Amino acid sequence: MAAPTWVAVPDDSPFGVRNLPYGVFTTADRPRERRIGVAVGEYVLDAGAVTAGRPDDTAALLSAPSLNPLLAAGRPAWTAVRALLTDWLTDPAHRPAVEPHLLPRTAVALHLPFEVADYVDFYASEHHATNVGRIFRPGGEALPPNWKHLPIGYHGRSGTVVVSGTSVVRPSGQRRAPGEAVPDFGPSRRLDVEAEIGFVVGGPTAQGTPVPLADAEDHVFGVCLVNDWSARDIQAWEYVPLGPFLGKSFATSVSPWVVPLDSLDAARVAPPARDAALLPYLDDLDGSTPPRGLDIALEMRVCGEVVSRPPFATMYWTYGQMLAHMTVNGASLRAGDLFASGTVSGPERAQRGALIELTWNGEEPLKLADGTERTYLEDGDEVVITATAPGPDGTRIGFGEVAGRVVAARAQG
Amino acid sequence: MAAPTWVAVPDDSPFGVRNLPYGVFTTADRPRERRIGVAVGEYVLDAGAVTAGRPDDTAALLSAPSLNPLLAAGRPAWTAVRALLTDWLTDPAHRPAVEPHLLPRTAVALHLPFEVADYVDFYASEHHATNVGRIFRPGGEALPPNWKHLPIGYHGRSGTVVVSGTSVVRPSGQRRAPGEAVPDFGPSRRLDVEAEIGFVVGGPTAQGTPVPLADAEDHVFGVCLVNDWSARDIQAWEYVPLGPFLGKSFATSVSPWVVPLDSLDAARVAPPARDAALLPYLDDLDGSTPPRGLDIALEMRVCGEVVSRPPFATMYWTYGQMLAHMTVNGASLRAGDLFASGTVSGPERAQRGALIELTWNGEEPLKLADGTERTYLEDGDEVVITATAPGPDGTRIGFGEVAGRVVAARAQG
Repeated sequence: MAAPTWVAVPDDSPFGVRNLPYGVFTTADRPRERRIGVAVGEYVLDAGAVTAGRPDDTAALLSAPSLNPLLAAGRPAWTAVRALLTDWLTDPAHRPAVEPHLLPRTAVALHLPFEVADYVDFYASEHHATNVGRIFRPGGEALPPNWKHLPIGYHGRSGTVVVSGTSVVRPSGQRRAPGEAVPDFGPSRRLDVEAEIGFVVGGPTAQGTPVPLADAEDHVFGVCLVNDWSARDIQAWEYVPLGPFLGKSFATSVSPWVVPLDSLDAARVAPPARDAALLPYLDDLDGSTPPRGLDIALEMRVCGEVVSRPPFATMYWTYGQMLAHMTVNGASLRAGDLFASGTVSGPERAQRGALIELTWNGEEPLKLADGTERTYLEDGDEVVITATAPGPDGTRIGFGEVAGRVVAARAQG
Repeated sequence: MAAPTWVAVPDDSPFGVRNLPYGVFTTADRPRERRIGVAVGEYVLDAGAVTAGRPDDTAALLSAPSLNPLLAAGRPAWTAVRALLTDWLTDPAHRPAVEPHLLPRTAVALHLPFEVADYVDFYASEHHATNVGRIFRPGGEALPPNWKHLPIGYHGRSGTVVVSGTSVVRPSGQRRAPGEAVPDFGPSRRLDVEAEIGFVVGGPTAQGTPVPLADAEDHVFGVCLVNDWSARDIQAWEYVPLGPFLGKSFATSVSPWVVPLDSLDAARVAPPARDAALLPYLDDLDGSTPPRGLDIALEMRVCGEVVSRPPFATMYWTYGQMLAHMTVNGASLRAGDLFASGTVSGPERAQRGALIELTWNGEEPLKLADGTERTYLEDGDEVVITATAPGPDGTRIGFGEVAGRVVAARAQG
């Protein structure tokens, strides 16, 4: 049963009052004034406007042009603000003061909800890593020897993280054709997507001080959708020995709504059984905390057609393990850090979250309903990733979408 | 001959009036007020204080708490501000207004001079890459096949870039001993340094639009020293297939002074001959622009003793090529982006910029004057990297230093 709210929200809304994701919006009449909004049903609550004039810290946190001050305020503030929002939207006594600040969602433009500090991308799906290993290193071991001992990750480019809806220019770069000794230069021929879940971090923490697994929830504010666009031909030529660089750094898209981790309690599930003993700093199987697997069901559409339904519950490594690993060397966190899971792929073909896997590096093209085939993305293709998860009392928690359209490469001299 | 200045600056000062590096400082009486300073001789000019009350944009750029607004203002502003500073310090008519704002350098505390946006580390020394390839992949080709076709790079963690003088806590992490199948956990036993040159970038540029080689000087504001601390045992276990992560992300130290690129015209030299034909976007050998090799002489001391003198002039890839490559896929630049060269190593043993090369992964320990030996760094060791380059009219351009001391790993549960 959905929680009672005086807002007209259908019971099956992905943005019910048990979700309350945060975003940043502008309106046509004030296009330069970025404001924090909270999605509820078909509305966006102008959160800063409701708090205007309040004497406490909440007004400053919710009146900012991005979520970063709220991210910096830490877990107690996140809990307090969420309780306040819930109270406003459920207690009819608040209706007169709050209702004037509900705007139709169709009337706002959504922006990057936070300033990205450091962006780290993991590689936490065993099915994805196995598929890619088989494709890139046929005949070798699919998984590298470290894979089940640590969540492999690398730093991406935070300056090219963009909000859903931003077009993505096809990147150009060095590509080496099979059998050739030297590369040529041109637009990527193997432009791909990666359907991922991102975790938005609050901070700061002190340099030199790891965040133990048990404290992960103090630093994970919320969850968003990520499309880590990837140029496979550029990546394949460049990535040995220092990892992905230009094959990834041209664009990473995120959803405009950050779903609070607090709204996902009903989505928690045990992660898959582990095949290798974990070092203590990564061992979350003692049952002393709620499990950190998340039953998030993703869906990926290309040109309007569902091509995959990746199940996040199959991920080998959890957000807690990723955070504990990322900081175990003393690396500090900052408000606005973003870490993503890596491609979400399940065991079935129709659960793979990247075209390289869905088409087996182009060998098995996808047939779309319009009669065309896809190996990798064509100019004009639009990719949309959506997701939902179980919410409290039978509700569903929606993540909205991360969408992007490919535009043609620009001519280069 | 040094340019005439009314400031008492010795002719052989590394911070003569032809250098004028920028930094950010505080004084003991105003410890929370970060101010932009310009080093000249034994002084720091409080640049914002001199401009206070000016009606033009210069005051805003120089009164900021970091260099970022100046970095964002772009090349014409950089040229104008440098001309203004030179005028103040050379024309005696300005002495009465300027001299009160010269503070002894010993009286200020220096801070990170800019907020680091994205940090990219390259691998641009052929000698370094060859040495590391021989050590990590004995029997294989020392250089990967892509090495002479593109400047290999990867993104590092910008949130853990610290200013010279910051202590570095020995990182802990997963290490796999030779012959073992599984890793153990503990403090790094192979803590290393990398002597590098960093390039500080102005922006922004638009996403989707590469910066051509010919425009590199529009976006490179200045040059600093970098120590890219590296835990070789953590790195060796983690880096396949996605590159360095925790082996590098615990700390990267930079010098407090950013030397303007404009002060390095006399240091320009032709880069080494190229063995492989370059794709047009990387080809800077047509002689139409001043060469982008830089004759910067580095010196690295461990516990006060010079252990290496790496020559930056031997680097295969130039800053222009690094910038053109980093953006050729359309990746945008932001003010405060930092890219570093990777370890600077020359062809001689005494020119290697990392202990892994100097001691051949510990097999050939360094003997220090106090009778002790070093393979990798011990707790308490201090590493100091300095550099100078030829300046105009026979002067020397100094870079100051990047220093850091290793402190013991912290206990972990």
